[in-house]
Amino acid sequence: MKHAEFSGRLVMLGFGSIGQGVLPLILRHIDIPADRITIVTAETRGEEVAAEYGIRFILQAATRENFADLLSPLLAKGDFLLNLSVDVSSVELMKLCQKLDVLYLDTVVEPWAGGYTDTSLTPSQRSNYAMREAAIALRETAQGGPTSVTAHGANPGLVSHFVKQALLNIARDTGAPVANPPPASDRAAWAGIAAKLGVKVIHIAERDTQVGDTPKKPGEFVNTWSVDGFVGEGCQPAELGWGSHEKALPPDGHRHGFGCDAAIYLMRPGASTRVRTWTPLEGPMHGFLITHNESISLADYYTLRDADGAVTYRPTAHYAYHPCDDAVLSVHELAGKNWEMQPEKRLMTDEITKGMDELGVLLMGHAKGAYWFGSRLTIEEARRAAPHNNATSLQVTAAVLAGVIWAMENPRQGVVESDEIDHARVLEICAPYLGDVVGEYSEWTPLEGRGVLFPEEVDAADPWQFRNFRVT
Amino acid sequence: MKHAEFSGRLVMLGFGSIGQGVLPLILRHIDIPADRITIVTAETRGEEVAAEYGIRFILQAATRENFADLLSPLLAKGDFLLNLSVDVSSVELMKLCQKLDVLYLDTVVEPWAGGYTDTSLTPSQRSNYAMREAAIALRETAQGGPTSVTAHGANPGLVSHFVKQALLNIARDTGAPVANPPPASDRAAWAGIAAKLGVKVIHIAERDTQVGDTPKKPGEFVNTWSVDGFVGEGCQPAELGWGSHEKALPPDGHRHGFGCDAAIYLMRPGASTRVRTWTPLEGPMHGFLITHNESISLADYYTLRDADGAVTYRPTAHYAYHPCDDAVLSVHELAGKNWEMQPEKRLMTDEITKGMDELGVLLMGHAKGAYWFGSRLTIEEARRAAPHNNATSLQVTAAVLAGVIWAMENPRQGVVESDEIDHARVLEICAPYLGDVVGEYSEWTPLEGRGVLFPEEVDAADPWQFRNFRVT
Ligand SMILES: NC(=O)c1ccc[n+]([C@@H]2O[C@H](COP(=O)([O-])OP(=O)(O)OC[C@H]3O[C@@H](n4cnc5c(N)ncnc54)[C@H](O)[C@@H]3O)[C@@H](O)[C@H]2O)c1
Ligand SMILES: NC(=O)c1ccc[n+]([C@@H]2O[C@H](COP(=O)([O-])OP(=O)(O)OC[C@H]3O[C@@H](n4cnc5c(N)ncnc54)[C@H](O)[C@@H]3O)[C@@H](O)[C@H]2O)c1
Repeated sequence: MKHAEFSGRLVMLGFGSIGQGVLPLILRHIDIPADRITIVTAETRGEEVAAEYGIRFILQAATRENFADLLSPLLAKGDFLLNLSVDVSSVELMKLCQKLDVLYLDTVVEPWAGGYTDTSLTPSQRSNYAMREAAIALRETAQGGPTSVTAHGANPGLVSHFVKQALLNIARDTGAPVANPPPASDRAAWAGIAAKLGVKVIHIAERDTQVGDTPKKPGEFVNTWSVDGFVGEGCQPAELGWGSHEKALPPDGHRHGFGCDAAIYLMRPGASTRVRTWTPLEGPMHGFLITHNESISLADYYTLRDADGAVTYRPTAHYAYHPCDDAVLSVHELAGKNWEMQPEKRLMTDEITKGMDELGVLLMGHAKGAYWFGSRLTIEEARRAAPHNNATSLQVTAAVLAGVIWAMENPRQGVVESDEIDHARVLEICAPYLGDVVGEYSEWTPLEGRGVLFPEEVDAADPWQFRNFRVT
Repeated sequence: MKHAEFSGRLVMLGFGSIGQGVLPLILRHIDIPADRITIVTAETRGEEVAAEYGIRFILQAATRENFADLLSPLLAKGDFLLNLSVDVSSVELMKLCQKLDVLYLDTVVEPWAGGYTDTSLTPSQRSNYAMREAAIALRETAQGGPTSVTAHGANPGLVSHFVKQALLNIARDTGAPVANPPPASDRAAWAGIAAKLGVKVIHIAERDTQVGDTPKKPGEFVNTWSVDGFVGEGCQPAELGWGSHEKALPPDGHRHGFGCDAAIYLMRPGASTRVRTWTPLEGPMHGFLITHNESISLADYYTLRDADGAVTYRPTAHYAYHPCDDAVLSVHELAGKNWEMQPEKRLMTDEITKGMDELGVLLMGHAKGAYWFGSRLTIEEARRAAPHNNATSLQVTAAVLAGVIWAMENPRQGVVESDEIDHARVLEICAPYLGDVVGEYSEWTPLEGRGVLFPEEVDAADPWQFRNFRVT
């Protein structure tokens, strides 16, 4: 079924696991002839997939020097730049699109190559906080301009819509249903709902159980989506939206001293930072506190302030990611080498033999304790639903598709974050690709099962303090 | 080739991976008729292996209540009790053997079932330090009695002999060869050699790369040797021999306040405590600081004191264990469940498809920096060398064989630790089963590659301080 018709041209920059996975969805759900689509990418990877669909394939890496010359001839007013690359500055691409009057979407605010680990920058400057500030700084000049959707994949992206649906479900189940959900543009109304429900902490709680038939080799980084993407963000400082209920900054926690101030960073890589979290099928587990755009955007969006501008409400928000087992091993090995990348990398797709991606949001501290809402997508379901995808990529590509359609339907919104997009419309488009979408309450808290073998320092008075979640 | 002839009876208590692996070695190298051997064990596991060799198999768990009645009829003066079980008190078995005038060997000082995680005991009482103290307390009454070898497998066990050979090699390579190595009974002479060479730290540095063709399932603990054994010791406090060069106790470090005082413990499970270490093939890596008998016995053995009894020299000594990848994942999962054991366990043997156990000792702080000496045994070599073994078990079973032979050759030594056993004799017996036995120097220190992405607190003045090795 076609959701939209598009008469412009579409340029896809980058054609890795997400690019290859979203192409069949675009052709299935958007009315656009294949000869109006062009792929520009840095490697031959995916060339056979492009050929399968009859899509023009330009093998050329975009760089600081050439990106404008490379892309401008391919794009004019009313066209679409879909950025699914690594190593190309999202902010520079957004500026170009504003200039050319071209629609734009990416799934992450990406820096130029090496930006995540550029040690000439401070950890704060290498943070997602700084990258998001640079992206949303374009809001003002982009007002009334072509829609530029920033950071709309699964997470960041889809999870912002899960949070909204989860809030509505909790409100319904605690006897205070929201009769008319406010529009996404009404930030304060949504923050008011979260505050009223007493949501103190939001985790993006993900457990990827996909496994393959080829064990990870020493010296190989294995993952179910971009290895470069994951290593890049894993080496950035751990970051989290910093809630108003938190009693004290972590000993290694820092504020940025500029921008929205909704988040802090820890003076260490996220891939070395483990936190306690929970998903319905896995139960209690340790996840990595990998920095993500949504940790900051959610905390910022759900902030309430008094008349003087002082924060009266904000949830703590962060990612708690249990990647696939081979990626856990890969991170362990990478840490052992002091974050020097393994010589080999492998993105698992066809060799996956079983497993699922259990990806959702865990809202905690309200009257019913903890509520997880999200997608449970098995590799078998993913393969049935769409070609060239695994369970992880399909959760992303469905959200990319939905974001692209929303931008086409709302073409003059300027720079827009996921939280500002209509959650119902996105969830409707994504639904066929998310497997079981379920909500489950739990009495789990990070104090459960603690201090049995050894005394542990916890804040017993408030289970929802970040220090209770933190492992390393 | 037969190394020894034994006219007594041999009782094997426990018949898991080590019991099954050592039986063919015993039959190959000790002249003992099969009908003089009896297996007593708690499960049917291995029954077919016992049958293959025509060995009597008694299915009966030993308990606090029944062990004396169960074993006494099977053992009399001059017989041998080979304890390769879990969950049976080594100290009680040693007492029984002293009473019955029976030779004895075990590979670990084991408590009764649940002893590793008995929360009615303090962490100090649950430590290997306390268990070793209880074992060596028998020394005095056992003087001149039948030989009781305590904790002689690969590690504890073989690694004590690796340390001696490594010291001799370093002495040779630094221009101060030891012309006549002192006997193992001359503790002070060996400690003097280590002190003169300036050895500050000894790691048991192990990297097990064995992988199988069946990925670990959620809820399953997978390992290449006893799952119960590993989980038990992994849940004990992290422990390490505490060197005289260490400037300050770790914040969570504690002395025991009784016994030899050679070691400290940390107020946390070893399986949650990662340290930096190095092996020649793996290079730098993170291992788990799992408590082990040898961490304490080595530190105790290599202690020098002045006339007033004050310690003038002692190396820091501990295990830095990178178990097989599936076990790393299993530990990660176990930690996520707050050390509540997975419902399923799997000991990999036949399903191993490749990999090796690189097990050695890493002596650091001497004139040539770091020196690793140990065994590199691949699964293929292990299978060629002996049936019913993988690479991990064969390193253990070869050492068990050697310990048993040594006890038969030296039957009236009372209670003996590995460090007190002739290293040359043991290495000679083990050699055919250890693959490549190699020594390699390295310039690696735990400061290598540190502080690149983020500032890290290190003691730059002395690389060999424990705080520099510690990760979590
Ligand atoms: N928000 C989300 O949920 C989410 C999820 C997965 C991935 N992502 C992001 O999406 C992006 C793509 O992920 P993936 O798994 O497809 O990555 P991938 O590593 O599989 O593919 C990256 C692609 O970018 C191309 N590329 C690299 N450098 C380039 C350059 N200079 N110019 C043009 N193309 C270049 C590569 O050739 C490759 O085709 C990454 O930035 C990743 O972080 C976001
Ligand atoms: N020092 C070393 O290098 C080293 C290495 C590996 C194992 N070990 C130790 O050796 C022992 C055996 O290891 P494994 O890998 O063979 O273990 P395993 O788990 O494979 O087997 C344990 C055996 O003990 C038996 N058992 C359990 N409870 C018993 C009881 N109450 N009475 C009699 N038998 C009982 C089980 O039935 C099984 O046969 C463990 O204590 C382990 O820690 C030491």
